[in-house]
Amino acid sequence: MMKMKIALVGISGYGGMVLYQMLQHHSQVTQIELYGHQQTVPTPLSQVVPLFVGDHTHQVLPYDSSKIMAHNDAVFFATSAGVTSQLAAPFIAHHFPVIDLSGDYRLKQPATYEKWYHKPAAKLADLQMAHYGLAELNDARHQSYIANPGCYATATLLGLAPLIQDHLVDVDSIIVDAKSGTSGAGKTPSAMAHFTQVNDNLQLYKVNEHKHIPEIVQQLQQWDSTVSAIQFSTTLLPITRGILATIYVKATPTTTATMVDHVFQTTYANQPFVRYTGQQMPTIKQVVGTNYCDLGVIYNEATHTIMVASVIDNLVKGAGGQAIQNFNQMNGFDEADGLPTDVLLP
Amino acid sequence: MMKMKIALVGISGYGGMVLYQMLQHHSQVTQIELYGHQQTVPTPLSQVVPLFVGDHTHQVLPYDSSKIMAHNDAVFFATSAGVTSQLAAPFIAHHFPVIDLSGDYRLKQPATYEKWYHKPAAKLADLQMAHYGLAELNDARHQSYIANPGCYATATLLGLAPLIQDHLVDVDSIIVDAKSGTSGAGKTPSAMAHFTQVNDNLQLYKVNEHKHIPEIVQQLQQWDSTVSAIQFSTTLLPITRGILATIYVKATPTTTATMVDHVFQTTYANQPFVRYTGQQMPTIKQVVGTNYCDLGVIYNEATHTIMVASVIDNLVKGAGGQAIQNFNQMNGFDEADGLPTDVLLP
Amino acid sequence: MMKMKIALVGISGYGGMVLYQMLQHHSQVTQIELYGHQQTVPTPLSQVVPLFVGDHTHQVLPYDSSKIMAHNDAVFFATSAGVTSQLAAPFIAHHFPVIDLSGDYRLKQPATYEKWYHKPAAKLADLQMAHYGLAELNDARHQSYIANPGCYATATLLGLAPLIQDHLVDVDSIIVDAKSGTSGAGKTPSAMAHFTQVNDNLQLYKVNEHKHIPEIVQQLQQWDSTVSAIQFSTTLLPITRGILATIYVKATPTTTATMVDHVFQTTYANQPFVRYTGQQMPTIKQVVGTNYCDLGVIYNEATHTIMVASVIDNLVKGAGGQAIQNFNQMNGFDEADGLPTDVLLP
Amino acid sequence: MMKMKIALVGISGYGGMVLYQMLQHHSQVTQIELYGHQQTVPTPLSQVVPLFVGDHTHQVLPYDSSKIMAHNDAVFFATSAGVTSQLAAPFIAHHFPVIDLSGDYRLKQPATYEKWYHKPAAKLADLQMAHYGLAELNDARHQSYIANPGCYATATLLGLAPLIQDHLVDVDSIIVDAKSGTSGAGKTPSAMAHFTQVNDNLQLYKVNEHKHIPEIVQQLQQWDSTVSAIQFSTTLLPITRGILATIYVKATPTTTATMVDHVFQTTYANQPFVRYTGQQMPTIKQVVGTNYCDLGVIYNEATHTIMVASVIDNLVKGAGGQAIQNFNQMNGFDEADGLPTDVLLP
Repeated sequence: MMKMKIALVGISGYGGMVLYQMLQHHSQVTQIELYGHQQTVPTPLSQVVPLFVGDHTHQVLPYDSSKIMAHNDAVFFATSAGVTSQLAAPFIAHHFPVIDLSGDYRLKQPATYEKWYHKPAAKLADLQMAHYGLAELNDARHQSYIANPGCYATATLLGLAPLIQDHLVDVDSIIVDAKSGTSGAGKTPSAMAHFTQVNDNLQLYKVNEHKHIPEIVQQLQQWDSTVSAIQFSTTLLPITRGILATIYVKATPTTTATMVDHVFQTTYANQPFVRYTGQQMPTIKQVVGTNYCDLGVIYNEATHTIMVASVIDNLVKGAGGQAIQNFNQMNGFDEADGLPTDVLLP
Repeated sequence: MMKMKIALVGISGYGGMVLYQMLQHHSQVTQIELYGHQQTVPTPLSQVVPLFVGDHTHQVLPYDSSKIMAHNDAVFFATSAGVTSQLAAPFIAHHFPVIDLSGDYRLKQPATYEKWYHKPAAKLADLQMAHYGLAELNDARHQSYIANPGCYATATLLGLAPLIQDHLVDVDSIIVDAKSGTSGAGKTPSAMAHFTQVNDNLQLYKVNEHKHIPEIVQQLQQWDSTVSAIQFSTTLLPITRGILATIYVKATPTTTATMVDHVFQTTYANQPFVRYTGQQMPTIKQVVGTNYCDLGVIYNEATHTIMVASVIDNLVKGAGGQAIQNFNQMNGFDEADGLPTDVLLP
Repeated sequence: MMKMKIALVGISGYGGMVLYQMLQHHSQVTQIELYGHQQTVPTPLSQVVPLFVGDHTHQVLPYDSSKIMAHNDAVFFATSAGVTSQLAAPFIAHHFPVIDLSGDYRLKQPATYEKWYHKPAAKLADLQMAHYGLAELNDARHQSYIANPGCYATATLLGLAPLIQDHLVDVDSIIVDAKSGTSGAGKTPSAMAHFTQVNDNLQLYKVNEHKHIPEIVQQLQQWDSTVSAIQFSTTLLPITRGILATIYVKATPTTTATMVDHVFQTTYANQPFVRYTGQQMPTIKQVVGTNYCDLGVIYNEATHTIMVASVIDNLVKGAGGQAIQNFNQMNGFDEADGLPTDVLLP
Repeated sequence: MMKMKIALVGISGYGGMVLYQMLQHHSQVTQIELYGHQQTVPTPLSQVVPLFVGDHTHQVLPYDSSKIMAHNDAVFFATSAGVTSQLAAPFIAHHFPVIDLSGDYRLKQPATYEKWYHKPAAKLADLQMAHYGLAELNDARHQSYIANPGCYATATLLGLAPLIQDHLVDVDSIIVDAKSGTSGAGKTPSAMAHFTQVNDNLQLYKVNEHKHIPEIVQQLQQWDSTVSAIQFSTTLLPITRGILATIYVKATPTTTATMVDHVFQTTYANQPFVRYTGQQMPTIKQVVGTNYCDLGVIYNEATHTIMVASVIDNLVKGAGGQAIQNFNQMNGFDEADGLPTDVLLP
């Protein structure tokens, strides 16, 4: 097991920033090179990301795929959807390990990508080759091309997996009421993310149109091919970090509360980053800053409805943290290496 | 139509404070007396409620039912559940008009009250006599004893009414994911409402156990007797005022998007305080400070699920505002008299 | 005393929106016409300002000075600095009453304007003619051209006036640590006002460079010609509405706490919108939604420093509210007509 | 240099929680024992502090000074003022190393303590022996009894030190306008820290009466004995973590901007946790989660006033972080061992 040199493309977005912080704590990473496809000359990191005010060590280098491959052992893309698939092609061609945080390689069918993203898809062969890195459920060992799941998809799929895999629920009844902090909406100022608009407010957006819907359905179908569609809403919260996905699904007539409890217990028994707390509902705060996904579940006898509350930090478990978890699996490293478990108190 | 003198019992809670502000703008109210059952001597209002820093006109008087009846034409109770039913009995005995903002008179069956409130119920006869004042749908004309609906119940019932009354949906599929600001949790400091705990957080609470559930079910059953139970979750938001109830319900096979749109249009066509905005999702911010309930509705062809987003200001439409609306109906006043329509900008 | 028709130019900014709401409650205003210099055709108000979702009465008309003068009795400009002075010239030429909320007419010297605003100034004659409408201290009776003070200037000047007018303090020791909510920064999305940047943060900005500094100094000099400069800092708060100006100034050796208390008492004894609360420190919350300026004052024996805490709602007392107060003074109306006094609870 | 076993008394408060997290990352700490003086039996940590939901390793043990000394090499007290001095006496008697985060050992004179804390003081001999651990300026090497500075005191003193030590300013002109998030006010619910009261608000509190004033003055006097008093205000912010101390002080006639810049550069040239950014004003956000104190300084030629903006995370640099920094100095460890430098993004 060798130590590794890592390139990170796309440091200026929130996902890239957080990923960079975590990689610095990884025991097997000896060097981190930062690249930006908007830089034309090497630029001090603290100039690109003012919050890294004291970081005088690193520079952001102009994007150069040959140089990345010459200097490094793997590359993380924290670039936008539509950009990554253009940048990543030479790496795939040279069999160079890629972990992509954008949505460009998550969907297996180009037509599905184009329908939901309104952009040209990557090549079918590349899409088929990519591994959908839902870390607890799809092992990335020996994979080279990781499509890191979306933040909403991660919270939703970890909440639904035990129920769908074990066929305990009516697959036509899945409803996800997902809420996210504003860091999920990115760094570019907009009317919707203006402080004055977000503060003291809730905003529903992209109802039934969010890009994470097709990757959720695609993964659910791998667990139960009879899944056809889900009801999925997203609400913008007046907080910075964190997602709560509140999931509702009808139990099948034979499903009992005990069965539900048991399947959550067993599915995640050996997973260090999923904490199932039974009927104790998790809060967003208890995972912010960490790679945990916390799950609480309540079975309502009166309505035969199972409610799952799934919380994650969208920038860690929902982005860079899961990316490192996949990186660890790919390389046979300790699954927790580099991953934060200290919650932001209080 | 005569001008009226009003007594308000319970000014120290948020509901009472806001009600008091609105009553001052009512064209038919010539006098407001404030009473508190915790006061033993008349106390300046600005001492009881520091935010009324400049109000040197009013005093809060020790509670005295005889005095209230002698001086006034009607009484509003903004007291807590369990307290009102003890205070209100003499008024009912004397046929004196009462508008109660607590939950004490909302449920028709004492056993149901006791199950959900864990307190002794009011007398059956009084419960039966009380009018459930969901203002747009139950006209309060000629009523004398108004049980003003709960805040969550108001948002939920106005969102569900058109669908249930017209039998467009599967009544066993009702799911309400309701979110509220902290003013709904009252003025008493608590660990759950401590700033440090609420800020940057979401907290699910009282899942399937909220006191507003039985009044919602009771009202739904009046519209469709086959309703038996609803799935109902409540989440505490890091905002002060406002509720968003996101409601999910399965359409019956014959229901179309056009039918759904039509029934919302017609149900609220002549209601000044319900604004139906079609597929445009309302935000909490657009109703804060007003008596409006804004409704947006999206029918999802893929899942046959109708999503209704219902927003209100919990302290106006969800409390004192609807109380005044009922007061206006009782007395034949203009329905909008005293009710705010200016949203808090921006 | 005649009823009046009013034109409002600039409804799309926060100041204009709030002004419009208040004008609708003014007993002497019979008609409000809205104009926008960006509109080319009449546009429904609810389209220009989505928060006015239910306002189907008003349209925003393309700007036309002749039409405004033909249809109305006075015009309010809620346009940006640099824009108003271009728009207002024909009104001044025709002796048509103008109330300007921008900074274009506040400074008496064109050179001062150009130094601080980095824009061409209005004509010297127009600047000299304008009345600086600090309503409690400069009576607007018989004035026709009102330069409405800036929000920070209003909070600061009302806090300093008693001390400077009565020469109780060292004029070289004035320090203002002013804090404002984001509505003061306007509606245009920016990196500094992005929710993610504002939330959980404080940002100092424009230290010693804020445009409101010269109008404060100019007014202070009218009260005491020996004032030469002030120390003035501005901090952006994670709240929407409200300003707290914390003012520090050294007492002269002969000044006592009693004298300080007395001069605040007397200066504002008959002012309905300034509430002096002695050593009780005001909070921002107690004025949000109102036209009040609340003042608390503490004299520190150990340091001979007087601290004044001055709070206002920047969009009411700091903008549209004071503009209406000036309008009332100009026309001999009741000073409180149209002005809100109900605080946003809780 | 030996590895150490550590006892931490007082895990249930915010300061103790954060200290515990950091100690777990310290390379020289091999064991952490948690004690609570309210526990009567060993209690799982996740029960005492629900946010440590996944920590099944540690228990909180009933307080027992003999056991602490038998098992450990040093003790941290994160208990309240008034409590620590009662608990710490046996440790001092046995020459056992103590680091106290409360205010009980900060002031050298019992009378001063009793005036500001309204509680009985520790013994004079113990007060005299304690080392005031302002880490950058008072080296803790070979010290055994550390009085860890208050959060406001840390931000203020680091901002003032260069100016006072080098006699560049008028010592009678010091004004500190300090603002803090609510975590500084502790975990106990209160009316002042209720979400509804804090949100959308600023609250001045304890003006000229804050307990950190005497420790600031005491330290300033060690640098310049002519200091007699400071003007010091505290404002509660609607944020959880972080302090901004805005400091104003008059320059002496001979002081120039260059001299000011130079003295800040040199004072902190070799300090890893103080970052001086010249005229670039620091934000609270850029230090949250870290042990940094960031300083920006602007000299105003017009008023001869120097403004220093000093930001810290009140729970790290203002509490547990500085405590570990002192612990590192005491024991000759790397000054940065265990201390976080990753800012909470974004």
